[in-house]
Amino acid sequence: MDRIPILKMGDCLLVTIQVDMHDQLAVSLQEDLTDQIAKHAARGVLIDISSLEIVDSFIGRMLANIAAMSRVLDAQTVLTGMQPAVAITLVELGMTLPGIRTALNVERGMELLRGYIQKDDELQENDGSEE
Amino acid sequence: MDRIPILKMGDCLLVTIQVDMHDQLAVSLQEDLTDQIAKHAARGVLIDISSLEIVDSFIGRMLANIAAMSRVLDAQTVLTGMQPAVAITLVELGMTLPGIRTALNVERGMELLRGYIQKDDELQENDGSEE
Repeated sequence: MDRIPILKMGDCLLVTIQVDMHDQLAVSLQEDLTDQIAKHAARGVLIDISSLEIVDSFIGRMLANIAAMSRVLDAQTVLTGMQPAVAITLVELGMTLPGIRTALNVERGMELLRGYIQKDDELQENDGSEE
Repeated sequence: MDRIPILKMGDCLLVTIQVDMHDQLAVSLQEDLTDQIAKHAARGVLIDISSLEIVDSFIGRMLANIAAMSRVLDAQTVLTGMQPAVAITLVELGMTLPGIRTALNVERGMELLRGYIQKDDELQENDGSEE
């Protein structure tokens, strides 16, 4: 298995990370994800890490990169399912996840994404009406 | 990673199989899935195998088992994302996936599940009104 599947759900994409990430896998995930965002004009990306027991600086940077790439492609990113132990370690190590919003589980993450997308749409409408 | 994450989406559960299944992993998936169905009173199970390049008789049997277990717990199972090569191999080897319905992708699978759940509800309502 050398690719992480990306599932399309409405105008959002869902990725569940289950395997240990290595360089090549991280690069292909970023490529696939940006491709899929462009292809489907996706508005949101939901990344579930509930099966990750360790989030090190490599994974943290990869997640931040994905969020930044998605943002410039006009898609929001939400990270879900972080294990409590991972949250503790992140804070203790002083690691931040810049530009990434989190939610407890996929359901709440989807709600959050829908909220962001709606707010984005409203802002764009307002921009349009002011011009 | 010794467990496959099960994501709750509304009254359905979503499982994406990304790693090679071995005995222990298959057993824990079956246990976790039945636990989660009972816990959340889930009505549907969606299993995505888009990253599996091989579906052998072991995986086929595991999928059929999951479908049978879900059925007795009053949940429908839909399999999505089968790669064309896998479909060809399945038919050529004469393997059937008894009791499993399939859909092209997660979106269609969810639609299918909703349809089944609705039909189930209607049948149960009719049963009730006849008594």
